[in-house]
Amino acid sequence: MQGQSQQQAYDRGITIFSPDGRLYQVEYAREAVKRGSASIGVRTTDGVVLVADKRISSPLLEGSSVEKLHKADDHIGIASAGHVADARQLIDYARRQAQINQLRYGEPISVETLTKAVTDNIQQYTQVGGARPFGVALIIGGIDDSGRPRLFETDPSGTPYEWKALAVGADRSAIEDYLKEHYREEMDLDAGVGLALNALASVSDDGLRSDGLGIATIDAETEQYSEFDEERIASYLEEHDLLAEEEQ
Amino acid sequence: MQGQSQQQAYDRGITIFSPDGRLYQVEYAREAVKRGSASIGVRTTDGVVLVADKRISSPLLEGSSVEKLHKADDHIGIASAGHVADARQLIDYARRQAQINQLRYGEPISVETLTKAVTDNIQQYTQVGGARPFGVALIIGGIDDSGRPRLFETDPSGTPYEWKALAVGADRSAIEDYLKEHYREEMDLDAGVGLALNALASVSDDGLRSDGLGIATIDAETEQYSEFDEERIASYLEEHDLLAEEEQ
Amino acid sequence: MQGQSQQQAYDRGITIFSPDGRLYQVEYAREAVKRGSASIGVRTTDGVVLVADKRISSPLLEGSSVEKLHKADDHIGIASAGHVADARQLIDYARRQAQINQLRYGEPISVETLTKAVTDNIQQYTQVGGARPFGVALIIGGIDDSGRPRLFETDPSGTPYEWKALAVGADRSAIEDYLKEHYREEMDLDAGVGLALNALASVSDDGLRSDGLGIATIDAETEQYSEFDEERIASYLEEHDLLAEEEQ
Amino acid sequence: MQGQSQQQAYDRGITIFSPDGRLYQVEYAREAVKRGSASIGVRTTDGVVLVADKRISSPLLEGSSVEKLHKADDHIGIASAGHVADARQLIDYARRQAQINQLRYGEPISVETLTKAVTDNIQQYTQVGGARPFGVALIIGGIDDSGRPRLFETDPSGTPYEWKALAVGADRSAIEDYLKEHYREEMDLDAGVGLALNALASVSDDGLRSDGLGIATIDAETEQYSEFDEERIASYLEEHDLLAEEEQ
Amino acid sequence: MQGQSQQQAYDRGITIFSPDGRLYQVEYAREAVKRGSASIGVRTTDGVVLVADKRISSPLLEGSSVEKLHKADDHIGIASAGHVADARQLIDYARRQAQINQLRYGEPISVETLTKAVTDNIQQYTQVGGARPFGVALIIGGIDDSGRPRLFETDPSGTPYEWKALAVGADRSAIEDYLKEHYREEMDLDAGVGLALNALASVSDDGLRSDGLGIATIDAETEQYSEFDEERIASYLEEHDLLAEEEQ
Amino acid sequence: MQGQSQQQAYDRGITIFSPDGRLYQVEYAREAVKRGSASIGVRTTDGVVLVADKRISSPLLEGSSVEKLHKADDHIGIASAGHVADARQLIDYARRQAQINQLRYGEPISVETLTKAVTDNIQQYTQVGGARPFGVALIIGGIDDSGRPRLFETDPSGTPYEWKALAVGADRSAIEDYLKEHYREEMDLDAGVGLALNALASVSDDGLRSDGLGIATIDAETEQYSEFDEERIASYLEEHDLLAEEEQ
Amino acid sequence: MQGQSQQQAYDRGITIFSPDGRLYQVEYAREAVKRGSASIGVRTTDGVVLVADKRISSPLLEGSSVEKLHKADDHIGIASAGHVADARQLIDYARRQAQINQLRYGEPISVETLTKAVTDNIQQYTQVGGARPFGVALIIGGIDDSGRPRLFETDPSGTPYEWKALAVGADRSAIEDYLKEHYREEMDLDAGVGLALNALASVSDDGLRSDGLGIATIDAETEQYSEFDEERIASYLEEHDLLAEEEQ
Repeated sequence: MQGQSQQQAYDRGITIFSPDGRLYQVEYAREAVKRGSASIGVRTTDGVVLVADKRISSPLLEGSSVEKLHKADDHIGIASAGHVADARQLIDYARRQAQINQLRYGEPISVETLTKAVTDNIQQYTQVGGARPFGVALIIGGIDDSGRPRLFETDPSGTPYEWKALAVGADRSAIEDYLKEHYREEMDLDAGVGLALNALASVSDDGLRSDGLGIATIDAETEQYSEFDEERIASYLEEHDLLAEEEQ
Repeated sequence: MQGQSQQQAYDRGITIFSPDGRLYQVEYAREAVKRGSASIGVRTTDGVVLVADKRISSPLLEGSSVEKLHKADDHIGIASAGHVADARQLIDYARRQAQINQLRYGEPISVETLTKAVTDNIQQYTQVGGARPFGVALIIGGIDDSGRPRLFETDPSGTPYEWKALAVGADRSAIEDYLKEHYREEMDLDAGVGLALNALASVSDDGLRSDGLGIATIDAETEQYSEFDEERIASYLEEHDLLAEEEQ
Repeated sequence: MQGQSQQQAYDRGITIFSPDGRLYQVEYAREAVKRGSASIGVRTTDGVVLVADKRISSPLLEGSSVEKLHKADDHIGIASAGHVADARQLIDYARRQAQINQLRYGEPISVETLTKAVTDNIQQYTQVGGARPFGVALIIGGIDDSGRPRLFETDPSGTPYEWKALAVGADRSAIEDYLKEHYREEMDLDAGVGLALNALASVSDDGLRSDGLGIATIDAETEQYSEFDEERIASYLEEHDLLAEEEQ
Repeated sequence: MQGQSQQQAYDRGITIFSPDGRLYQVEYAREAVKRGSASIGVRTTDGVVLVADKRISSPLLEGSSVEKLHKADDHIGIASAGHVADARQLIDYARRQAQINQLRYGEPISVETLTKAVTDNIQQYTQVGGARPFGVALIIGGIDDSGRPRLFETDPSGTPYEWKALAVGADRSAIEDYLKEHYREEMDLDAGVGLALNALASVSDDGLRSDGLGIATIDAETEQYSEFDEERIASYLEEHDLLAEEEQ
Repeated sequence: MQGQSQQQAYDRGITIFSPDGRLYQVEYAREAVKRGSASIGVRTTDGVVLVADKRISSPLLEGSSVEKLHKADDHIGIASAGHVADARQLIDYARRQAQINQLRYGEPISVETLTKAVTDNIQQYTQVGGARPFGVALIIGGIDDSGRPRLFETDPSGTPYEWKALAVGADRSAIEDYLKEHYREEMDLDAGVGLALNALASVSDDGLRSDGLGIATIDAETEQYSEFDEERIASYLEEHDLLAEEEQ
Repeated sequence: MQGQSQQQAYDRGITIFSPDGRLYQVEYAREAVKRGSASIGVRTTDGVVLVADKRISSPLLEGSSVEKLHKADDHIGIASAGHVADARQLIDYARRQAQINQLRYGEPISVETLTKAVTDNIQQYTQVGGARPFGVALIIGGIDDSGRPRLFETDPSGTPYEWKALAVGADRSAIEDYLKEHYREEMDLDAGVGLALNALASVSDDGLRSDGLGIATIDAETEQYSEFDEERIASYLEEHDLLAEEEQ
Repeated sequence: MQGQSQQQAYDRGITIFSPDGRLYQVEYAREAVKRGSASIGVRTTDGVVLVADKRISSPLLEGSSVEKLHKADDHIGIASAGHVADARQLIDYARRQAQINQLRYGEPISVETLTKAVTDNIQQYTQVGGARPFGVALIIGGIDDSGRPRLFETDPSGTPYEWKALAVGADRSAIEDYLKEHYREEMDLDAGVGLALNALASVSDDGLRSDGLGIATIDAETEQYSEFDEERIASYLEEHDLLAEEEQ
């Protein structure tokens, strides 16, 4: 009880430090991320895989409008988890940064540069008053000008991390356990898609549904972001025996 | 009790995160939407249907002044539920966006582009201090330049969703149950109007009144928004045996 | 008790939503309207009637300085109820809008356009921080360019309504009951004045006083706002047997 | 007790509505007016009379520096009650408005126009945050261009009233009772001065002192504001048997 | 107890009215004035006298650096009591006003004009948020262009008063009692200095010390502000038998 | 208990002083530093050594993306501990300062000048409202234009310190005890690296891992910042028998 | 208890007056000064002495980086006590003022002018909201253009004082007692240094350490600020038998 009432004292109004040096508003924004359905990123030898659980709540909802995968530039894709409207703001910010870089330097923005522009923007909302932090985590994947696949995470504090494979959103911990066990550096894109889907299936009681998933890859050779359509997802799921029973 | 007093601690002042990652001011704005009478949207093969329950409180009130259906552009209509004055702000914003698009690009704005301009505007009011969120949900329906009918929702968090059919406002859940059961992809506009009215009637104890309803369609062929006048509504209701007993 | 202390938690500082989706500061502003003496509007076939109860508190006070009826433009009048100083701000705003319309488009502003400009202004004070809502309701009556009489209400939330006849301020509910019972669509201006005065008399224990009333009409033919002088009011009251006993 | 603690909840910080629709900060500003010594205005057939009780607290204080009567323009005078420093701000504002009117339109400002400019300024301080209301009431008296004497009041809410005779400040109610009983429409300036002094004397236990009073008139013929000097006040008081015993 | 807790409710944050119409922050600023050592002003037939008690706390402190007497213009001096750093701000403001007046109108500022410029500045800090009132009272003395000595006070509310003789700061009430008893209109400057020193001595248990006093005069003939040096103060004190025992 | 509730009263909202003259928000920001893994700086005769514990939480995380060592200019490196996103802001600020200095004066910025520019920036966030302090400490090391190695610390209060050797972040006190005991002024760079690693190992239960460490030197001769790659770190650790058991 | 809880009510948020006229935030800033190690200033016939206790907490810390003595201009030095980062802001401000004076008037700034510029700056932070007061006291010593040594203090309220000799920071009262007893007006610089060191030694249990001290003089003849190096301090301490036992 004591602990709880103390905690409550430091998490109101603007983002300030608690006596133990924590920023509660940022930590609560992380809870907003956990409330969102999962997104997964996997870096392979020949590109990056992004997979998103769309958690479609009604058959009348168009699954394609649940925005969890976004093309930020030809060679960069972003998957999100958490507060959808906040994600849209950051995606727009990322796209503008990509365009500005192209205009200013005549070349595509690097994945790392883009990630850090986004995290610096996020950090401002945790330090300067008059606004709340962003309640969203992003997975930013793409191909560098040397052709190397890169995979980053932005969290609500504004810290950038680079990963071989990761999950954000619901069940992050369980999915990452699966990834840790099965990830292999030498995977190709197809194996990466399989890993991500199996990791997601490992936390789904009922298997996966083709209309409740988003899959995108950024191929190291073509340096192009491309999303699977629902048909391709369905056939892939069936092929790998991941389809939910009701859809079979 | 414990739970309640904790909740109260995170829903004051500007929009901030609660310990479980929720934005209470946004959730309360959703309650404001529920306090408004229902609006329904149905997407059919040859256009979009918008139906609004106007809940006229006095015979001296001009039903036409209860604004729940709005023409945003020639080819786009908007139905609202919730705080009426807030809705007017967003409708005005939508109309300006449509005009700006026409001026800047020489062509009508697409339904999706308009929806996302509106939701981005809504999101700002949930993150930056000094204002409250909008207490209103919109149904934005229209025809795309490929002639395809589209139907979107904007909610108080600023998230856009695309639907085949949906309801916002009072009795949303019950109306959507009706829609889920009776919606058919191959419906035409007339069947869509019937579905929306029957869905609304399913939650009205006393049948529908012609002066308490608004009906609008956006036809895929003409790409024109058009509202039914009261006479046409009355004859339609009579024809389909939906008229309130007192009006018969 | 529980309910009361909960309510108190959401009605301080800037205007924010309560857990049940209400804006308490707006609802309290409605109470400020109820604290004001009544104003009544009646739409007739040949014009609009505005009647205001001036509630003169002292014989030394000049009744004409109790401002409840205002000419907004040649063809538009406004009656108010509630916080007098707030009303003055909105009247000034309405007059400026009428002038701007005339300058910009070379024609008089329509009653509906003026009403919505005023309500949009009111809404801003309920959403953006740093100010309180307006504690006043307006009845805006006038003649459209087609010669049609129109009668609108603006409330503290910024919602516009069109009425056949209405009351704002003290005893609104009782006066509207009287109006509902006796209003006839085919009334002429003179009958409209009679209806408004009788409705007001129905809630006055002691009859009406000529120096405690304001009466204005906007005639559909002349399209001119015109106020009765005290003498004309007195003779009218006498003629219709509405005069307070002490004045007879 | 319950009532009191409820009241306390709505009268802090910026000016907001209480659940019963009141603006407590404005009502408390009215208390600040009551804490000030009285000022009286009387409108007569040939001009306006302003009388102020200066309540001199020490024989070392120069009575002339207790500012309660002010010339706003050649033809307009202002008497104040309440917070002296606040009054000075409004007087300065009034003088600037008078000068601007003269410059812009080439003619003296009317008493009513000046009054409403002042009340609109006062209202802003009751609605927009970041400042408190003015703790002062003004009596504005003068001659219109038709030669007609006019007498107005501004209160802390920013409402303008026109009076035949009135008092503001301490003992307002008792002084106005006296005025109501003895005021006659056909009074001349001299009778007006007598009425005001007798009204003031009616609430003074010890009679009036010539150095504790201010008297000014605005003559309808000359259209000039003029203040009595102490000698003239003394002889007037003696003549009318109003002199305090100690001064006789 | 009840009274006290009620009072506490209205004296926080920005300066707002209490239910009885008081501005507590202004009243507390008056307490800050009382915490300062006394300053005295005396108006005589041939000039103004300013005397300040410097209350030197340590023999190592240079008495001359305890700023209580200030030359504002050639013909105007200011004595202060209260918060020293606040006094400096107002003195600087006064000096700038004097310079501006000289530049703009080619003549020295009058004592009354200067005083009112200062009080208007003080008032702003009591009404507009984001700052606290000035915790200082000033005695402003000087010679008018007609050669007449004038003596004013500014208090923390921003009210200007004119005095024959006054004290501000500690023991104000006791010193003013002495002044009231012994002040004579026909005094000359020398007698004025004597009166001020004797008044100060009347509240000092141990007599006066030459290094703990400041004395300044503004002579009506020369129209020049001039301060006594310590030697002259000492000989004056000795001559009038006012010297503290330890200094004799 | 008493002490604790008193403390809580002074550490909310903007950074203000507590009754004992402390700035709690700054002290809590120091706790944020302690929550970060350690960084160590050692000044040697021929350069500066920076070592950072990266505390890699997952084998899927790319250690290189855990940013604790930064090149600020050719001749200056920075190690950080605490809130990572805050550190990025200060590093960016430092880099801009270095560039500006080069542009403006045509020469590299000195280590001390850079440090003080950073601390002045940090101080602003502890005094001016509307933002929180930076939750990060920096170690800034480099070579002066005289070729002299310099080593500074910036803390969350904005105070600059110069050190021979220091640690920031977790276990600071224990690591500094080790440094105090083993530091020798005459050390060369290689010995400095050894000292830093041994100091870090002294607080690590399981030895050091090559992928969990960052090592950088700024050589006094070349005046160049250079980071060890993972291979070089591994061989160094093995050579000095510091490798964690699992990695051997 | 009562007293304490009352006090707590007036020391939050912006700097406001308490009921007894105190500014608690300023008084708490004075506590921040007391938390800092002492600085001493002594004015002699041929110059000013500044001595600072550096309180070096670790042998690895470079004593020279503990900034307590600062050259503000060729002829002016400043010693500080309290919050180090705040001191840096004021020192920078002082230096800019000295430069501006030189540029604008072509001559060095006087010690008194510089002091008052600094205190006026400090005062602003105690009156205007949105920032906290400076938690630092300065001793400003220098030579005037007449060659006269001057010695001033600035405190957190923004009040300037001139002293013969003073201390700020820890043990102020005990050190000033020593100074009062031993200060002689006719001291030369060397005697002044001795007085300051002996005063500091009087409150140090273990004697003084050469690396824990700063000594500066501003010579009246050369008008130059100069600091002792550690060697000179050590030999001086030894000569006067003030060296700490461990250093002997």
